[in-house]
Amino acid sequence: MNVILFESSEIDGCLVQLEGRRADHIVKVLRACIGDMIKIGIINGKIGHGTIKEINCLRSCVVTVKIDRLEEVPPETKIDILLALPRPIMLKRILSHVAALGVGRVHLVNSQRVEKSFWDASLLVEQRWREHFLTGLEQAVDTMMPSLTMHRGFKPFVELELPALASRYQQLLLAHPAAGRSLPDVFTRGGGRVLLAVGPEGGWSEYEVDSLIQAGFTPFSIGPRILRVETAVTVLHAMVDLLMQQYCCPVPPIAS
Amino acid sequence: MNVILFESSEIDGCLVQLEGRRADHIVKVLRACIGDMIKIGIINGKIGHGTIKEINCLRSCVVTVKIDRLEEVPPETKIDILLALPRPIMLKRILSHVAALGVGRVHLVNSQRVEKSFWDASLLVEQRWREHFLTGLEQAVDTMMPSLTMHRGFKPFVELELPALASRYQQLLLAHPAAGRSLPDVFTRGGGRVLLAVGPEGGWSEYEVDSLIQAGFTPFSIGPRILRVETAVTVLHAMVDLLMQQYCCPVPPIAS
Repeated sequence: MNVILFESSEIDGCLVQLEGRRADHIVKVLRACIGDMIKIGIINGKIGHGTIKEINCLRSCVVTVKIDRLEEVPPETKIDILLALPRPIMLKRILSHVAALGVGRVHLVNSQRVEKSFWDASLLVEQRWREHFLTGLEQAVDTMMPSLTMHRGFKPFVELELPALASRYQQLLLAHPAAGRSLPDVFTRGGGRVLLAVGPEGGWSEYEVDSLIQAGFTPFSIGPRILRVETAVTVLHAMVDLLMQQYCCPVPPIAS
Repeated sequence: MNVILFESSEIDGCLVQLEGRRADHIVKVLRACIGDMIKIGIINGKIGHGTIKEINCLRSCVVTVKIDRLEEVPPETKIDILLALPRPIMLKRILSHVAALGVGRVHLVNSQRVEKSFWDASLLVEQRWREHFLTGLEQAVDTMMPSLTMHRGFKPFVELELPALASRYQQLLLAHPAAGRSLPDVFTRGGGRVLLAVGPEGGWSEYEVDSLIQAGFTPFSIGPRILRVETAVTVLHAMVDLLMQQYCCPVPPIAS
């Protein structure tokens, strides 16, 4: 937890009262005392600093933080992900990873190789998936909560929803091991959002690949190595991010 | 396990007898029967196909495989990693990840922010770390076992070992959040091996950064987001890999 995040609705005047996980982290991991300054952020808002005003650890810990300064809003990320629903234990990690890496929206979609039972996972309740996104934001010092949408039918998604969705992106990229071109080959220069499609373990079916290509996705391969979906998502995000840095909007140097 | 790997010393004529984890995988996950063909590979050798000759599951499973064809040797990877020793549970995952991504050698080095107890981890015994590399190779369908070397003193490593080591690489790259330049900015075109240095949670000390720069490392930043070491290693490997594809040796298209 490299930043303590809270909802704007939790602010009372210029104070925030924290309990549970966040209070425990301040007391037990940061070992902060009254008067110490900590990094704070409002979910979907600004990042800044606060001062510990009160620590009360009778039964469980309650920490009161005074908001001192709220300055920058983190830069918007330009990568969204279309992901064939992975098994819940892997999805948990993926949600946390992509929030740490920076993602605007995750679209979960059905695929022939997705087990039906995955759609019953308790993780797919908003309260639950937000927790995992939150872990990633707290790690990366970001406040912009990604959104998550679920598409339980592949065909209705591609035919009815994808056309409107696709028009919001400058590029639709489909990771596909059998593609004949590499990512740098297919990546188009210029700004704009990218939607990156990643299939299930075992890959999309032939029909699914054809449908996505017909909907405007450009297939590319990153080589012959078979990666776990979880690793593939991180690798692909990193590669698209690098190409954006090279071709679109160079990241300014960072002072530590 | 996308390939069944074994040592050349396990081959008897053209047969290999498998027990334990590998036999269990063939019987329980692949549900292979006598006569079925499976993908096999010799550690540090060729990849090919074998046929199941015998399955014996009285107490534990023993599977006999006949080697049919051994064809290609996987291409050599050109990325090595210099890593400040992470905590054992994270190192396990990193070893498996980097073997899946493709790495030649992992150098583990001490750093001011490495806990001394990490050097006592049972994982640092060869038999143990090889298991985790093996998991990555089995995932990625590779046979080339990475090597691992340990450097328990940062100063003796940098002063006595690094000069000779450095001469084997075309580029020494140091991931460092405070660096003023991006990875594409500092990456030099042309072939050759890259040694990529990744620090501990909390980063290298100022003295360590200075020493590595003096030894020839070029610092670069991938932006302001703070990533877990595990995620950072995968992201950095992916980015260096992409730059190599772009500038050095384009990966040929893959037939599925």
